[in-house]
Amino acid sequence: MSKDSLLSLLEAEAGEYVSGEEISRKLNVSRTAVWKQVRKLESNGYTIEAVPRLGYRLTGKPSRLSVHELLPKINTRNFGRNLRLLDVVASTQDELRRLAEEGASEGTLVIAEQQTSGRGRMGRSWVSPAGKGVWMSLLLRPPVPLPLTPQLTLLAAVALSRAISRVVPVTIGIKWPNDLLVNGKKISGILLESAAEDERLRYVVVGMGISVNLDAEDYPEELLPKAVSLKMASGEAVNRSDLIAIILEEFERLYGLYLEQGFAPIRSLWEAHAVTLNNQTTLNTPQGPVHGVPRGLDDMGGLKVELADGSYRTVYSGEVGS
Amino acid sequence: MSKDSLLSLLEAEAGEYVSGEEISRKLNVSRTAVWKQVRKLESNGYTIEAVPRLGYRLTGKPSRLSVHELLPKINTRNFGRNLRLLDVVASTQDELRRLAEEGASEGTLVIAEQQTSGRGRMGRSWVSPAGKGVWMSLLLRPPVPLPLTPQLTLLAAVALSRAISRVVPVTIGIKWPNDLLVNGKKISGILLESAAEDERLRYVVVGMGISVNLDAEDYPEELLPKAVSLKMASGEAVNRSDLIAIILEEFERLYGLYLEQGFAPIRSLWEAHAVTLNNQTTLNTPQGPVHGVPRGLDDMGGLKVELADGSYRTVYSGEVGS
Repeated sequence: MSKDSLLSLLEAEAGEYVSGEEISRKLNVSRTAVWKQVRKLESNGYTIEAVPRLGYRLTGKPSRLSVHELLPKINTRNFGRNLRLLDVVASTQDELRRLAEEGASEGTLVIAEQQTSGRGRMGRSWVSPAGKGVWMSLLLRPPVPLPLTPQLTLLAAVALSRAISRVVPVTIGIKWPNDLLVNGKKISGILLESAAEDERLRYVVVGMGISVNLDAEDYPEELLPKAVSLKMASGEAVNRSDLIAIILEEFERLYGLYLEQGFAPIRSLWEAHAVTLNNQTTLNTPQGPVHGVPRGLDDMGGLKVELADGSYRTVYSGEVGS
Repeated sequence: MSKDSLLSLLEAEAGEYVSGEEISRKLNVSRTAVWKQVRKLESNGYTIEAVPRLGYRLTGKPSRLSVHELLPKINTRNFGRNLRLLDVVASTQDELRRLAEEGASEGTLVIAEQQTSGRGRMGRSWVSPAGKGVWMSLLLRPPVPLPLTPQLTLLAAVALSRAISRVVPVTIGIKWPNDLLVNGKKISGILLESAAEDERLRYVVVGMGISVNLDAEDYPEELLPKAVSLKMASGEAVNRSDLIAIILEEFERLYGLYLEQGFAPIRSLWEAHAVTLNNQTTLNTPQGPVHGVPRGLDDMGGLKVELADGSYRTVYSGEVGS
């Protein structure tokens, strides 16, 4: 039994109940198989009412992103105006990287309803089920030298956290360098992939994954203590098109500010949102663990860490240990 | 008439003279066409003696790189041991980048006898005729954060200039960041292409183009005032296998030193070879021209430039203006 056949059956009844027995008979599968398939549809964003004796009734379909809904909301000069909205893709990063190599312009955006191989930092996989999140990648071609790329990583975190706070009443903390947390749980991940020729950045692909309308069931159990969605945190479903439009607006505005005035204003905003500062912390870096108290950012975008002996060390790459 | 048929004719005579008239008749082309084709063969590395009344005689064939000749000379732990030697390729950079994405290990080397779309800095093309140069790309996977990539650019210049000086009696100057000059003319270009995920370098592809045995005729006329080959500069042809083996040895040694002791020793070596320091200079940067006197490198690998008012500015990306 494919989920489509169950779905067609429910849709054919146009909101009326269909008994489990009837479904079981028509599709020639067990009652347990029917129930499992109902759960699967629910996890894909359908809402199905199950009433003993009456059976199953389709009450809601997943909200899908559409270019027609999204484009009129986008209020930017460039960002997101060249838009590719995909149903399923392995990874929006790989897709946009391909477009970048073909010469796509700054601001090009790839959005997918679902990623089958979504990637997070350090090659980890990223949970990105259909219709419930914002999984997207934005192309930048910044006229800044390669060593300043960490500043863009931090800029992305600030843009995203400001945008989310405008749409959903939650308080967002930034965990160095660019994880966004609500009540200590991760709500969004950002991944910048850059390509350079000598010190000249050819392009940067900014991957953003935001857990918007995921429910607890959508997460692997081991992630629940440290991950949360905007819907779970705020108690309400969020319109994804609104969120995407506001992210593009904030991102373009901050990026413009950065190109005009440099890193200083971005640094202040990042420090104001950071939850990593002024606490004893272990940072796992490619050169080994660094123990100390992060005090702020330096001019390049590195994290200044005060060590036990009072001296400072700047860390450019790594993660806050657990 | 194809050059192969003239070549077969000369080869068939095994070093004896063949008259122009005979060639002209056998290949059914004009004497002028014969002469043109002889010049073409010469530019591909053949040496042909032309004696009035006697005709043409093949006296030398282009030396070709071979894995059998090269591998026994390579005296490294890693660099160049995974070797791909190609006859013709669009660009060794693109070829190695593809291998890098497929997971090739550090030290993997791609060499080509000829590049049809060799690339230099800033998207310029690079003259790389068959059999006369060292056109190669080396894969690094350095455990250093992205902002330190400029240090690798400088390291490559030092490694290459030291290696060349070991093989050929010329004095090499480094023009910031990584052009190698002999008597003010460019003998080699280096191009680093890097790919990063956030601040983590995934890989760096180091492209090296060295004009080894090119003759003046091999250059477009407009390049002659500013480009030279090792053969033209030293008066002698250079064994390319020897040169490649020594480059790999120097590069691996300096790279090991860098990973162990950091940038300080590389910085000293670069400054000792540099021709860009302590002269009034204009640097063309993505942020516009910078006028001043370069005084040395900073800890990150940026060029410290003293401005007219005595203040300093650090430049990470750009070129020395002409």
